[in-house]
This record gives sequence, C-alpha cells and structure tokens, in this order.
Amino acid sequence: MTQILTPITAEEVAEQLPAIPFGIWFLIGAALVFFMNAGFAMLEAGFTRAKNAANIIMKNLIDFSLGTIFFALIGFSIMMAEDYVMGIIGVPNLDIFANFANFDSSNFIFNLVFCATAATIVSGAMAERTKFSAYCIYSIVISAVVYPIEAGWVWNSAGWLAERGYVDFAGSSAIHMVGGISAFLGAAFLGPRIGKYTEDKKTGKKKAHAIPGHSLTLGALGCFILWFGWYGFNGAAAGSVDELGKIFVTTTIAPAVGAVTTMLFTWFKNKKPDVSMSLNGALAGLVGITAGCGNLDAFGAFVVGAVAGILVVLAVEFIDLKLHVDDPVGAVAVHGVNGIWGTIAVGLLAVPYEAELDGGVVERAGLFYGGGAGLLSVQVIGVIAIAAWTIAAMSLAFFLIKKAHGLRASAEDEIMGLDTSEHGLASSYADFLPVVSPDSQALGGGSEKKASAPVPVEKAVPVTDVSSGTRLTKVTIITKQSKFEHLKDAFDRIGITGITVTNVLGYGIQRGGAQMYRGVPVESQLMPKIQIDIVISKVPLELLIETVKEVLYTGNIGDGKIFVYDVENVIKIRTGEEGYAALQDPVPGDE
Amino acid sequence: MTQILTPITAEEVAEQLPAIPFGIWFLIGAALVFFMNAGFAMLEAGFTRAKNAANIIMKNLIDFSLGTIFFALIGFSIMMAEDYVMGIIGVPNLDIFANFANFDSSNFIFNLVFCATAATIVSGAMAERTKFSAYCIYSIVISAVVYPIEAGWVWNSAGWLAERGYVDFAGSSAIHMVGGISAFLGAAFLGPRIGKYTEDKKTGKKKAHAIPGHSLTLGALGCFILWFGWYGFNGAAAGSVDELGKIFVTTTIAPAVGAVTTMLFTWFKNKKPDVSMSLNGALAGLVGITAGCGNLDAFGAFVVGAVAGILVVLAVEFIDLKLHVDDPVGAVAVHGVNGIWGTIAVGLLAVPYEAELDGGVVERAGLFYGGGAGLLSVQVIGVIAIAAWTIAAMSLAFFLIKKAHGLRASAEDEIMGLDTSEHGLASSYADFLPVVSPDSQALGGGSEKKASAPVPVEKAVPVTDVSSGTRLTKVTIITKQSKFEHLKDAFDRIGITGITVTNVLGYGIQRGGAQMYRGVPVESQLMPKIQIDIVISKVPLELLIETVKEVLYTGNIGDGKIFVYDVENVIKIRTGEEGYAALQDPVPGDE
Amino acid sequence: MTQILTPITAEEVAEQLPAIPFGIWFLIGAALVFFMNAGFAMLEAGFTRAKNAANIIMKNLIDFSLGTIFFALIGFSIMMAEDYVMGIIGVPNLDIFANFANFDSSNFIFNLVFCATAATIVSGAMAERTKFSAYCIYSIVISAVVYPIEAGWVWNSAGWLAERGYVDFAGSSAIHMVGGISAFLGAAFLGPRIGKYTEDKKTGKKKAHAIPGHSLTLGALGCFILWFGWYGFNGAAAGSVDELGKIFVTTTIAPAVGAVTTMLFTWFKNKKPDVSMSLNGALAGLVGITAGCGNLDAFGAFVVGAVAGILVVLAVEFIDLKLHVDDPVGAVAVHGVNGIWGTIAVGLLAVPYEAELDGGVVERAGLFYGGGAGLLSVQVIGVIAIAAWTIAAMSLAFFLIKKAHGLRASAEDEIMGLDTSEHGLASSYADFLPVVSPDSQALGGGSEKKASAPVPVEKAVPVTDVSSGTRLTKVTIITKQSKFEHLKDAFDRIGITGITVTNVLGYGIQRGGAQMYRGVPVESQLMPKIQIDIVISKVPLELLIETVKEVLYTGNIGDGKIFVYDVENVIKIRTGEEGYAALQDPVPGDE
Repeated sequence: MTQILTPITAEEVAEQLPAIPFGIWFLIGAALVFFMNAGFAMLEAGFTRAKNAANIIMKNLIDFSLGTIFFALIGFSIMMAEDYVMGIIGVPNLDIFANFANFDSSNFIFNLVFCATAATIVSGAMAERTKFSAYCIYSIVISAVVYPIEAGWVWNSAGWLAERGYVDFAGSSAIHMVGGISAFLGAAFLGPRIGKYTEDKKTGKKKAHAIPGHSLTLGALGCFILWFGWYGFNGAAAGSVDELGKIFVTTTIAPAVGAVTTMLFTWFKNKKPDVSMSLNGALAGLVGITAGCGNLDAFGAFVVGAVAGILVVLAVEFIDLKLHVDDPVGAVAVHGVNGIWGTIAVGLLAVPYEAELDGGVVERAGLFYGGGAGLLSVQVIGVIAIAAWTIAAMSLAFFLIKKAHGLRASAEDEIMGLDTSEHGLASSYADFLPVVSPDSQALGGGSEKKASAPVPVEKAVPVTDVSSGTRLTKVTIITKQSKFEHLKDAFDRIGITGITVTNVLGYGIQRGGAQMYRGVPVESQLMPKIQIDIVISKVPLELLIETVKEVLYTGNIGDGKIFVYDVENVIKIRTGEEGYAALQDPVPGDE
Repeated sequence: MTQILTPITAEEVAEQLPAIPFGIWFLIGAALVFFMNAGFAMLEAGFTRAKNAANIIMKNLIDFSLGTIFFALIGFSIMMAEDYVMGIIGVPNLDIFANFANFDSSNFIFNLVFCATAATIVSGAMAERTKFSAYCIYSIVISAVVYPIEAGWVWNSAGWLAERGYVDFAGSSAIHMVGGISAFLGAAFLGPRIGKYTEDKKTGKKKAHAIPGHSLTLGALGCFILWFGWYGFNGAAAGSVDELGKIFVTTTIAPAVGAVTTMLFTWFKNKKPDVSMSLNGALAGLVGITAGCGNLDAFGAFVVGAVAGILVVLAVEFIDLKLHVDDPVGAVAVHGVNGIWGTIAVGLLAVPYEAELDGGVVERAGLFYGGGAGLLSVQVIGVIAIAAWTIAAMSLAFFLIKKAHGLRASAEDEIMGLDTSEHGLASSYADFLPVVSPDSQALGGGSEKKASAPVPVEKAVPVTDVSSGTRLTKVTIITKQSKFEHLKDAFDRIGITGITVTNVLGYGIQRGGAQMYRGVPVESQLMPKIQIDIVISKVPLELLIETVKEVLYTGNIGDGKIFVYDVENVIKIRTGEEGYAALQDPVPGDE
Repeated sequence: MTQILTPITAEEVAEQLPAIPFGIWFLIGAALVFFMNAGFAMLEAGFTRAKNAANIIMKNLIDFSLGTIFFALIGFSIMMAEDYVMGIIGVPNLDIFANFANFDSSNFIFNLVFCATAATIVSGAMAERTKFSAYCIYSIVISAVVYPIEAGWVWNSAGWLAERGYVDFAGSSAIHMVGGISAFLGAAFLGPRIGKYTEDKKTGKKKAHAIPGHSLTLGALGCFILWFGWYGFNGAAAGSVDELGKIFVTTTIAPAVGAVTTMLFTWFKNKKPDVSMSLNGALAGLVGITAGCGNLDAFGAFVVGAVAGILVVLAVEFIDLKLHVDDPVGAVAVHGVNGIWGTIAVGLLAVPYEAELDGGVVERAGLFYGGGAGLLSVQVIGVIAIAAWTIAAMSLAFFLIKKAHGLRASAEDEIMGLDTSEHGLASSYADFLPVVSPDSQALGGGSEKKASAPVPVEKAVPVTDVSSGTRLTKVTIITKQSKFEHLKDAFDRIGITGITVTNVLGYGIQRGGAQMYRGVPVESQLMPKIQIDIVISKVPLELLIETVKEVLYTGNIGDGKIFVYDVENVIKIRTGEEGYAALQDPVPGDE
C-alpha cells in the first residue's frame, strides 16, 4: 500500500504522509466496530429474560461467525467486486482464497464488520421465540446476499446510488435501516411472544404487556460499548485529522442530545425519566448521525439528536401499542426509524460541499443550508430504493424459512426458555433461581392450552376427614445448605421421595470473626439456610427423625432443627389419589 | 491541520511526520476516555445495591450527555477561549455552532471527555439517596462552570497556573481532585444513607454499617475498563512515541503497585486480602500517576503507587469511621485524596526537565531529584487554589440546590430504591428476586419510624384455647420487606430467637399509579414480601401477636397478616432436646 | 525513536514514514492486550460459581499486578536483555529503574502484557479450590522466571529458537501453550473440586459431574472482549498496513470458523448447539491462529479454525471424562491443545516467505505449501522444547508450593466458597440469594463425613397426638412454574385473594434426555417449582381443590400436589380482625 519509489521528491513524500496512519486507523476502527458485537450481545441479553440469555448470546456470536464465512465466500465480491454489473451487483469471485497476496484485506475486514452489524440488529427484535436453526439461515441470507447488494449500491464507487451522489457516510440507511426493516419483518413474521398481548374479552382490543429485561446493568453496558465502538463505526473512513475530529464531535453531540431529549420527553409524558428508553435515545442519536457524521455541523448534529430522541419513543410505542409487533429491545425504532431519519436529515442539514459526480464537480448542500432539493431528492430515492429491496428480499426470505423450515420455536420451548429448549442449558445463571413472574410464565395460548383444556377431569373426591390409620405428617428441616447432599442420600435410603427445598434465611447473632467490607464489619445476622419440607405417611416419623438427626448431628452450633406438623390431607393431581395413596409414587420423585 | 504547502523541503516534510499519527491518536485517546464512562457506570452500579442500579446508570449516562450540551454551550469557551481574561477565565463564545468549519474539533472532544470524567466521579459518592433532578442540576453546574474555570488555569496556555509551570499532565488535581472534593461535599450535604450509621444508645457513639454492593463482578469489570481507558486518559496528549511509551510504563506500574500494596495492607490489617479495596488500590495508583505520568520515572511511579495503595485504605476508613461521611464507592478516597497526592508527588519525584516559562527556559525537577522546592511550591499552590475554588463553588452550588430544589430523595423513596421511586422501574433485574438484608432494609429513622411508633394499637384479643406450658405454636407473618428491621428489634426485646425468613411473593391487585416500562404499564401483581416463621413455646402467643401488631400497624393497606398453626413437635439436632426444651437456646440465635 | 537529523533527504524521510504510526499502534496494541485481562476475568468468573467470583477477579487483578512488579524486576531482562547468554537466558539488569531515560518503554510494555496473559490463563483452570496465597507465589514464579526464559528463546533475536527461524508470531506456543500446560499441571496438582467426580460403588469407575458457571452472559462478554483484544495481541507487531490487514483477516476467519465448527460439532454430537462450548470454539480459533497470523493465508486460517473448533471439544471431554483433571473453564483445551496445534499448523500451512537466518536468506513455507519438512521440523522442535521446559519448571514450582506452603484450600473453605473463606466477603452478589444446588453444595468426604457418621443419637420420642378443632384451612400447592397464570385466573374466579408464592425446588429423579453442559450430563434433580400457600375460610375447601385439579390436571408426570393443613388463627394487622373476618378482604388482594 505504501510502497515508496526511489528517487522520490519531498512533495511525493508529503503526499504519502496520511497513508500509513490512516491505514492503521482504518483497521483500528474496524476492530472497534467488531467490539460492537459485545455491545449488541449485552444490550439484547440485558433487555430480555434470563431464560433466553444464552440463546441471545449465541445468536450474536453466530451472526458474526457465519457472517464472516458467507461474506468471504459470496457477499464481499457481490458488494465490492471491481467487476460490477450495471451499478447493481458485483460478479462473485473467491479472490480472498485464490489471490490472498494481492487481496485488499483492510477493505474486506472493514466491510465485514459493517455487514455483521446489519445482521445482528435483527437478533434483538426476534429474541425469545425464534428457532435457532431458522435464525442461522436468516443470518446467512442477509450476510451473503441481501446486505451486500444494497451496500454495493451505496459504497461501491460503481454503485448506482454512489454515482448519483447519495450520502450515507457510515450507514444510517445501508446498515441500520436495513437491519431495522429486517427486524420489523422478522418480528412480524414470528408473531409476538406468548403473553405479550392479550385480548380484552369485552372490547376485543389487544392489550400490550411489559416484559421487563433481566439485567438493566448489562443492557446499559451494551449501550456504552456501542457508543464507544461508534467512534470507529463513523470515523474509520475519515481521510484527514480535521475530518475525523469533526466526525467525533457530531458523533458525540447527537447521542448526547438524543439521550437528554428522550429523558425529558419520557419525564414529561410518564412523570418519570425512563432509563432504558434514555439508553435507546442515545443509540437513536448515534443511528441518526451515522449518515451525516461527516457532512453535518454541530448544529445539525444537535437537531438530528433531538429529533431522534423523540422519534424513538414514539416509534417504540407505535410499534408496540398500535401495530402490536413485538420487538423486545426496540431495534425497529432505534435502527429502522432513525436510520431513515438520519439519511433524510443529510438532505436537510448537510453543510455545503463539492460532490464529484459523473458530470463533474457539483456544489451540494442540505435544503436548510441553501442546497435546494437536489441532495434531498437523492437521499429520498436512496431510502426508498434500499427499503424496497430490503422489504422484498427479506419478506421472501422469512416467508420461505417459515414455510420450508419453520421460524418459531414451539410454545412449550418458548415457555421453558430457549436456553433449555434450544441449547440444553438448564440456566445461564446456575447459582441463582429466577423468580416466577406473571409475564415470564404467561401462557397466551397455543398447544399447552389445547393440551390442558379439554382433558377430562373427574370430580374431586369430596374431602372429609382422613381416617387415622393413614396419618399424614409434615416434617420441616431447617439446616445448613451444605448438608443437603447428605440428607438427600439419606432420604433415598429410607424411601422418601417428593421433597421440597426452599432457600431461607436464618436469623441469629453471628459468632466468630466479623467479616469486613471496605474496612467496615458486616453484620450478616441473616444466614442462608435451606428448609426441606417432607410430607410422610408410610415412612415412620421416628425413622425419618432419627435419620435426619444422624445425618445432621455434629454437636456443633448450627446443626439445625426439625419441626413436625399434622397434615389434614394430600392430593396427587395426576391420579386424584388422596392421603396415603397420594404419597406412594410408583417411581421415586415423579412429581 | 496537516496542510502541506508546495514547494516543500524534505526537512519540512520531516517536521510534519508526527502531526497526522498523533492527531489520530489524540482522538483515539479521547474515545478511550469516553469508554471510561462505561467503567464508572459498572463500578458504581456494582458497588451499590440492586435497587438503585438503574439510577446509577442513568446518572452516568446523563452526566456525559448533559455535560456535552453545556460544555459545548458554555464550558469549553470559558476554559479554552483564546480570549482569556487575566489568566482566570475565557470569554464565552459559540464558535462550535457559529464557526464549525474552523472549530478545533479535536481539542473540544478531548477536553469534553475529561470534563465529563470530573463530573461523573461524583455520582458514586452521592449514590442511592440523591433526587435525580437535583443531580441533573449539579451535573450542569460542574460541566458548565466549575470545572472549566479551574481547568483553564491548568491547561489553557494563558492560564495563571500554566504560566507558572504547574505540572498536572492529565489531571490528578484538575479532574480527580476536583471530582473527589465535589464528591465529598455532595455526600456531606446529602447525609448518609438510611441505616449506614446508627447511634449506640449508651455511648452515644456513631457506628458505621457495611452496605455491600450488589455485583462485585460488574464492579471489577468497571475497574478493568477504567484502567484500559486510562492509557488514553494519560497518553492522549503525548507528543512522541518515546514519551508515550514512558507514559504507558508509569501508567502501568503505579496501579499494579497500588493494587498489590492495598492487597498486602488489608491482608495485614484484616487478616484477609480485600478484593474490592484492592480494585480501589489500582484506581488510586492510576489517579496518583495522572499528574506525573510524563514527568516521573519507573521508580517514581512505583513510589506513587505504593503510597496510593495505603492512602486509599486509610482514607476510606477515616472518611467512613471518623468523619461519618457516607461515600458508597470510595470516590473521595480514590480520586480526592490520591488526586492531591499525585499532584504533590510531581513536586517530589519529577525527573529533571526544561520548563518554558515567562522568563524563558528554566531547569526544574522534583525535590528528591535535586530540583529544590521550586516545582514543589508551584504544585502546592496549585492544589490549594484549585481546592479552594472547588470547595467554594461546589459548596455554594450544593447549598443552593438543597435550599431551592431539595437534594435528597425522601426516606420512603430511598428505602423503596431509586429505580422504582425515581424511574418507575420495578427492578433492574426483573427475573431475580432480591433478598431482604438487614442493612438494605434498615430504617434509620425519619418518617416511617415516626409513623409506626405512636400509633395506638388496641390490645390483642386473647387467642382462644391456647394452653400454657409445653404447647408449641408456629406463627407465620407475611408483610413488607421494609418492616423486617423493626420486627427483628421487637423479637429481640421479647426474647424470641431462631426465626426463619423467606422471600415470597404476595399476589394482589395493585393500586395507585401504574409503573411504566418502555411506555407500557407494568402489572406487578406479584409483590415481594417477606415471610417470617417463628415457632414458640415459652413466649406467650398473645405477647408475640401483640408485639407484631404494634410494629406492623399503620392502618394502611399492606400491613400484613399473622397466621397461627399448631406444631406437633420440635427437635433440636445438636442436643436431641424436643418440644419446649428444643426452643430454649442458651444464647439467642445459635441455630 | 524518531529522531530526525538535518540535512535530510526525501528518501530518508520516506523511510521514516512508518516509524511513528507503527510506534503508536504498537502501544495501542499493548493496551488492547491489557484489556484482555478484563476478558479473562469475566470469562473465568462467569464460567465458575458465584461463591468464588471475587476470588477469580482478585486472581486476575493480582496476576497482572504482581506480574508487572516481577517482570520489571527480573523477567524482562532475563527475556530481552542484550546481554543474552548462549541463546538461552538474559543477564538480569535493572535498567528500567537505573536508566529509565534510555529504557525501551514500548518494548517493555508490549512484553509485559503478553507475559501477564500467559500467567492469567492458569487462573481459570485452578479456580474454586486454590489457596490464594499459593496462587500469588505461582504468579510470581511464572512472571519472573518460567515465561521469560522460554519467551526469550522465541522473541529475543539472540534466542536459540529465533535463530533457527522458529515462527510463533504472537505466541501460540510461547504464551498460550505455556499457559495451557501450566494450567493442566496446576489443576492436576490441586485435584478436582469437591463433588466434581464421584466413584461408582459397583464399577469403581469415576463419574464426572457438570458444575455450571454462574453467569453465561459475563462469560460471553469475556469472550467478546478477548476477541477484540486479540486484534492487538496478533497485530501489534505488524510492520506494514498490508501485513496488519492480513493479520486482521486471519485473526477474524479462524475464530469465526472455530465457533461455527464447534456449534455444528456439538449440535451433531449432543443434538443441541452448545453455547459455552461455541464461545470456547471461537477462542480456540484465536489461539490457533496466533502463531501463524502473519504467515497463513485466508484458507490456512480457515483450516486452523475448523480443526481448532473440533479439537477444543474433544480435548475438553478427554481431559474431563478420561483424565479426570478438573479444569472449570476449559483453559487447557483452549490454550494448551490449540496452542500446540496453531504452532504446528505454521509448519503445515505457511505461505512461502524469505527467512533471514544465520546462513543468510532462506526460502521457507509450510509442508502443504511446498516448503518441505524444514519449517515443520523447527516448529516441532520448538513446541517440544518449550513444553519440556514448562513441564519441568512448573511441576517443580507446584510441587514446592504444595510441599512448603500448601496449594489447596481446605474442604470447609472450598464448600463455603473462596470469597468468604479467602477474602472475608459474604457474597459477591449481596442482594441476591444463591440457590442451593446439588453440585455446588456437594461434600466429597473428609472431615465432615467423619464427624457426622459415628455420632450416637438417641431414639426419637414418639410424637404425641394433637387434637384439631377450628375451621381455617391452609392449602399448599406445589407445581410447575408455568402453571401459575392459569391458577391465578382460577383463584380470581372462585374469589380467592391473598395468596403467597414461593420459589422452591422439587427433588426427584429426572427422566428423558439428559442435558449436557460442556459435554457432561447435568443432573438437575432439583427442579424449580412454585409453592402457593392459601389460607381459606369462606371458600369451601372442596371447591378450591376441585378447581386446582381442573387447572393442573394433564395426566402427565409433574402435575403437582395439594397439601391441606389446619390453621389455628389468622390476624389481619390493619384491622385487628381475626379468624374468618381476617380473610374477608373488601377488595381482592389488598394486603
């Protein structure tokens, strides 16, 4: 790239000054964009439920990984091949493998990380209910074909939009709008998550329910990582330090104003400043400034951010409450709506500049900066064309995937959580027990309802007093958590099945050395214990108590206590058996 | 910036060699400093409680975002304007909007991210009890006025400290000390969190209680991100590769030695190496080396780190245990104390260098490096002047905010958690149920105590047919988590020991204003409650019920319920005692 | 470094063009490698249990910090001193302190961050059971002596391997294999975590148990951070933009292909794509490409990634299931096995290049690229020599530490968790209560078992009858969490209010396909359930039971059970009402 010929003049050397530093920065910028994958993964995982966290992570990892393979095999040459047909599509080649020595690696990496961004935007909108295999197919389609074609229009110098002077510096339309539209289509083809919308029986109106994410801190971390990476996203292709500095300023002002605007807008609307929405406001500002980061001034960036900060709130609510399309992380509002806004904004707010078009150098500027409708009309045409292509191509893709393969996980899998059903992972947070929440466990309908509703259930045997021959007794043991394994083994030995374990806190004065936290003693008088509840009938109470005592006894403080209660009745739901019979499992532990 | 004139000589080109690469690095450095916002957000969120996590995140996001707006509007020109009055203050201008084409964007971004750092340091110290609106006002004040004025003294070439050769390369004093002092003032004006300090009734002495953070892993992540970003913080303004390499070495040695020193010091003091304090030790080393990163050698960095690692521990304890100022994350100790130390350290340990002052070039060095008291005295004067300005300006600011607007959230809001009270978010971790902890639910006083204490409660109706003697009874109380501390004290009074606490969810229709999540109302019909189980024998049931009623009664919905059950038997495992005897602990709470 | 002499010719200036930008990039690369510490910390913390999270964090922090001190004092000069003896070892000096002005800071920082990487790889494999003080000693040994010696062979231009043309560009062998082998030795010397392996009493065979990590999201974040940092790791030493671009391509393709290969391989083997293993697949690809990132082409990188993605799975399973060495995070498989593979791969797949050796310039290439066995044999010799040194030195080190100091925490400390036992921290997640899990609380044996077994326990006193009497009844339902919504609706219908919901764990033998975690079946015999407690008086018991049966009945295992208890009394605190009256809420659910 920076081959120096000798003899060389001082002027020639001076011309070479930017090549190496900007060549390195171009790649650093690409690395920063790669890092945005971590941002998307954290944002999407944090804003969805714990039971799907591993699935979201996997989708983000595989988006990039499959994207790399298929962008190398097909996408890159479709987009950037020198052999570019009619301004629309490149002729596929395998130069990356066949001619690596002369391959433009920097250009490949740069375009790859952008392609992967477009692909990964969609994973958030399709979260918590998509079949993983279907998602892999989608990911290949967008990386190999859909993105490369429209991105070539914009960034291949022979692309038909590029030749018309279309301005989308870093991809408000070519990446974010495409990702956002695909996200909308994906979410619409999938349908909402179970429990997201319910119908009012009287009015017949759909009601939206909030399904809060499982970790706002991870979501916020994702937002900060994205913002950080965006300096590479918008800045990587800069050609001078002055331009790069200006890009940094616009890329800072727009999200800052976006976040503040959203904060004020939600404060005004809902009486409280909304945190996760303000994080989205910052991202909306970033998406909005992406097209014009090099063409807008500080005032323009301010306007872009302010509009984006309001647009994102209105769009989230419109999509959720009016369209009833379930986009768990707001990807459509952030990337789709603001991708359009940002691209159009260039036509309104670009500062005057000289564009090199076919017919020579032309003066251009935004409508409000004295440029007339020239640039604006190009921007509008570009947005429409790219949107039309994306809608057509992705609708077809999702339609075919749905028909030929199936797009959505089964209701049972969805309720169980995709971590378990798709990846065989009991929990992404093995040491913490998720709470039961009305939304997270809601059953909107489908298979389970069908399964449970028409089942013939015999009337319950009237409960009277249970005869004394089959005395039922409940034994509650409270002891140290570390004793559980021993107890379990002992229960197995004496034939006890069906115990219930609860994490509880025992209160007492702590003895021994106090624990210090930042130089201050911790009074942890509430000590974690387990409570084990067992209802017995056949197993003699004496045997159980003796067994527990044998296992737990050490003679030291903290061995625990056993409580004995009378039980009036027990009913096993599957069989309708009561009392003694309800406790006799044919196989241990089947309930 | 890098305009090349032709004809040009080889010498002129050679002089231009550093301009572009260092111009780009300057901006990369600024991006790294921006990323420190993620570090602060994670550190502060991790070291505070789950119920305030979203609030901390929001403060960090808005610090930067509001800071950007007001630094652009006012702060930057006050600090860096060429039209600088008497070495003290610049004349405000709006060049960023009025003359963007010729605006020094790089310089603006660089100074903005530093300004935002000073502002965000304070959020940790004021965590968990500050009214959000008050925090926004504070944030504007420091970004628009307080920071720009003193930073101009140091970094505007016409600043009065700059002209005297004051050395604070990257801001130990101008940023960290200012942030740390503001943090101290903010925390002092606010007062401590409820439950942080209690008064011993006999001695009248205040006792500090530890309030552990909710995620040490996020806190540690924050620390690592900060350290990573610090290479940009300290290195961005370097002028040669050699200087940058030396800055990287000092910026690595000081935190490494700081972390090890703190580890050893806490190991020695408390018998165990303290993790969160060691993370603070690394940060203390970073703060300490910030002023002298370009002027100290490896040995100097070693000394700075070692002193910082001890100072931070002593300062945390002094501020907490002696001054009783409640700084949840140790911001005052890390940034304030070590910001002072680092600035003074330059006067002690700077290697000899030539300073360009008014009177020409002067040889300077630290006291221990043969430089006499010249540099040291300038450093001391600078620290005093900047500290005085900060104390005066921020005291006035906090005083006015407190008087005119109110600084602190209500006790009720604080106990509920600012996520819910300020942002309408039921939980930042919707899928996980926070535990009830004595500290996190403690009620130090104020409204609730007043509300519950003087309530007239009629004597409990004697419970029928409870025979005296060895009768065993189980009492289950289900009530609000925030009542736990009161109940605990009451149980202590009437001699009850050995209670079991379970986090449960109470189901009911919620009343009052619905909470909004992303524009959608949240139906949190499952409300967190605590269930307290007590088995009694000696303590009369009537006394227990009456006591619980007195503590819990407010006359409002949600006071809770008491359930009474018969118990057949209790066995204490350690002694084998049963019934009455099993419940008579020689010392309270030993099981 | 970039001293410009005048007069200077244009040619001389042209030769200087790369010096500054690559000098800066070298340091940015080092900062990225530093950031990998955050990646390792998150990866290792996420893949282990919550009770050891602070300990893992601390080990990562202290690895780097102690490493900095000892690499500065001894390691750096042993590795890189100009005074290098017989191609094997440098003569220690203290130039960093004695001669800082002329010290090559960039070189020091660069080698330091690599050294710290080798050290920190081991912390994951030794997680959850190592005495912290022993770990500190290990950390000093590897940073001060073991790593510097072998790394000097490879990267000191006078090193015996360097002189033979050994190719390990960024350290597949010198760093990752050394870390991986040390990890294996450390884990083997320690022995497995308690509960990791149990012996079948009949067959005498060892059985491996899965111990899932506590946060897959943090683990994934760590993986993304590592991948991001790897662009610095592999790219920092590049000498031209073209070379850097090619390194970025190979460093992207190998992990992408690695992740996809592992996904497909686990999908095929276990029927489900394994998330944490796929993350490891990406890392395996990164480790594999590290040696040859500058010498392989895109196809070579593809092969390296594909092989790595399968190797990592086989190695994890072989080490766990066959060798029974307990490596909680898979460090040996990722770094050790793939470090070897990556180094050998250079001998197979390097594109032709000219190597400057003693005897002049030699043409070299990988075996499959027409290079014959020349390069391959050097690579094999290097791997064997470095592995032999590492095995010898680290075995001796661990042996001496074990004998003289003790390597492993006590069983009691391990069960309690190292956060508490080693660092005095009650919990790294103070606001969340960890669940009891069979693995996490397992007791392999030793002291506790001995203590409890032979204790003489007197027979339990026969339980006396208690007469019943009142008409308040408590009904407890234990069933699947997913049934809650249906039950809630049913309760509303029959007029039940004021229920209490608790997350509990039901114990039983699991049926159906076992879940796999990192190739090991998970025995999740403790299944999350909900317990719903209802106290009724007005609502007939028969109606309630019938309703519950109708809702829960499906005829399948797991429908749940209903328990009925007598209640003596209920008191509503707000009104003082008792019994029947206390349960009659004027509005549903007001308490």
